Amino acid sequence: MIELKLKPREDRRLRAGHLWVYSNELQTDPAFRGIAPGSLCRVSDDRGKPLGTGYVNPHALLAVRILAGNAETAIDADWFARRIEAALALRQRLYDAPYYRLVHGESDGLPGLVVDRYGDWCVVQLGTAGMENLKAQVIAGLQSVLRPRGILLRNDGGLRELEGLPAYVEAVGEVPDEVELLESGVRFLAPLRAGQKTGWFYDQHDNRDRLARYVRGARVLDVFSYVGGWAIRSAAFGASAVTCIDSSQTALDAARRSAALNGFEIETLRDEALDALKALRRDQRQFDVVVVDPPALIKRKKDYEAGLEHYAALNRAALHLLPADGILISCSCSHHLEAEALQRILLRESRHAGRRLQILEQGAQSADHPVHPAIPETRYLKGFYCRVLAA
Amino acid sequence: MIELKLKPREDRRLRAGHLWVYSNELQTDPAFRGIAPGSLCRVSDDRGKPLGTGYVNPHALLAVRILAGNAETAIDADWFARRIEAALALRQRLYDAPYYRLVHGESDGLPGLVVDRYGDWCVVQLGTAGMENLKAQVIAGLQSVLRPRGILLRNDGGLRELEGLPAYVEAVGEVPDEVELLESGVRFLAPLRAGQKTGWFYDQHDNRDRLARYVRGARVLDVFSYVGGWAIRSAAFGASAVTCIDSSQTALDAARRSAALNGFEIETLRDEALDALKALRRDQRQFDVVVVDPPALIKRKKDYEAGLEHYAALNRAALHLLPADGILISCSCSHHLEAEALQRILLRESRHAGRRLQILEQGAQSADHPVHPAIPETRYLKGFYCRVLAA
Repeated sequence: MIELKLKPREDRRLRAGHLWVYSNELQTDPAFRGIAPGSLCRVSDDRGKPLGTGYVNPHALLAVRILAGNAETAIDADWFARRIEAALALRQRLYDAPYYRLVHGESDGLPGLVVDRYGDWCVVQLGTAGMENLKAQVIAGLQSVLRPRGILLRNDGGLRELEGLPAYVEAVGEVPDEVELLESGVRFLAPLRAGQKTGWFYDQHDNRDRLARYVRGARVLDVFSYVGGWAIRSAAFGASAVTCIDSSQTALDAARRSAALNGFEIETLRDEALDALKALRRDQRQFDVVVVDPPALIKRKKDYEAGLEHYAALNRAALHLLPADGILISCSCSHHLEAEALQRILLRESRHAGRRLQILEQGAQSADHPVHPAIPETRYLKGFYCRVLAA
Repeated sequence: MIELKLKPREDRRLRAGHLWVYSNELQTDPAFRGIAPGSLCRVSDDRGKPLGTGYVNPHALLAVRILAGNAETAIDADWFARRIEAALALRQRLYDAPYYRLVHGESDGLPGLVVDRYGDWCVVQLGTAGMENLKAQVIAGLQSVLRPRGILLRNDGGLRELEGLPAYVEAVGEVPDEVELLESGVRFLAPLRAGQKTGWFYDQHDNRDRLARYVRGARVLDVFSYVGGWAIRSAAFGASAVTCIDSSQTALDAARRSAALNGFEIETLRDEALDALKALRRDQRQFDVVVVDPPALIKRKKDYEAGLEHYAALNRAALHLLPADGILISCSCSHHLEAEALQRILLRESRHAGRRLQILEQGAQSADHPVHPAIPETRYLKGFYCRVLAA
């Protein structure tokens, strides 16, 4: 196995529980660049004291991710099975039905690996060269713990580019294009192959549970609805009418079919979000609850300013559709946008609109997406539940 | 009415939605110190443009709090009734039963006023000279909106000292020493006169609702239990055994009687929290869920370092009582302790204890304690729900 040594004093982050080593923290020689991306490695401090076992990509800035604190641990299918079992035990405690994020990367001690469970099927994302190399062990581990009918590798996410990995989608066993899932008793159709990410956003499950107290008898607007998570959960909680806005007709069709599964009718508007919001204002439409849940608008730090303006414009447009005593649920899944910054946007836009805001709740990613307390990047989703009052 | 003018450029905070003016931001003359504390006032910017109506205490650093953005508003019983009605509309949407914080100061547009509702009774805290002066209007407003059987003024809180106000407790109408309340269907006895604050902590209601997924069949320890909120809610969610630690025998007696009301038995340990936790460790007791919910250990900035160490010691002691896969719920109601700082304490103490933490959820004060987006001080309660794993 490859042995890597940290520069002096660069061991502090790992000793504090972090799992990442940047390339400039390593003592490297010319041979370093020749290491095959994703190779397993042992990491020690500058005096040779072992710190753990991980994998290394010499071409990535984030060069090493630690898998086990013990330098003697064998990273094989059994090791994956034990980590997956520990992850499963948590999710079985959290949720009644087998639909959840089963493995959330670093937070579950499995850096670079995401597994979403859809009952008898698993959708896997291998985000790093190291995990890609361990694909066989991941699959064997999943099979020994869960015996799924099929595993879909959705290895077409954006992060793989940073690792020099190709995009591909591959099925192990039989995997349907679309599966049905249950979220707190409500039925949804998730497009596993053609949908966003793994097909569904489990990270908003707990936040959608909180809709109950806000949507009874209400007109609810779900902006960036994708397949209708917020809208259909609202209908199930007794909303009087629900409307979805999305730019994808495929997503809206899935939303309409999911609504029908539960016996609801929904309105769908296919358009860019800002255009749709402006058209609703022109038509003098009003909603009692508006959910703004866009995809990450700040993917990289350089997108920060433009992203801020985009979040502001969306929330401004949403505020225009709310009567006094309306509820605005405003989310961001951009790690780079801190909750405080989103709150400042909401405050400023509410002042411009002549409204007074009360922040009632602050949501985060669901409990099946744990935060690793040493790795700030594992906290990414935030959502403010705001009451909008006349000034 | 008294007219006050801000210094140049000191209007920016108010224009951004904040409600406070510090004395050094005012243009004052020698007569300023002679103003009767709590007098109503009109505030304008340095060019005389009106900014709002509020009250002033010339002897307090935080000299002015704004009540209404309109300088012409009459601050009378009708005005209070309208603000209380708006506050009530929110709580009725949030909770099925009439037990909640009805008015949360600045966040409800009523700076210096707290009202907790216990069914037919209200407990009021007047925190400022301005609100003390408006006592008759507050009471008249409450009576016109709610027609309570009695109102208890618990004007014995610590903040009144800063305003030069005496401590007193006074009843308007008939108020029992103890009332029964319902929290999500569970019955509790709250000591209105002799208890902490207003007698009960509604701010943890929503967080206690989240216990459901963690406590079924579990041994639960409630540290700083007061009258047993976390413990008895846990019992109702199916905990196998619950234990309360508190230094007050009166609180523990109320906890035991509340438990009995719901048909539960609980264990109570009367001791200082750290001593009790150490004794439990000596006795090799283990718990599946430990809740650490102390009173504010950092009341003023100068208490910061000592408070940090106190939080650390408590969480360290709690970690020692948890087996692998245990749950630690760690709270702080100190505004001065930021969530990030509490998270750092939890990370460090878990590393020292040879444990790995996953943060599953982050709780905040319940939705009947809204955050004012322009006033950071209105956000104070934080709680981390952590899973504790072997390293």
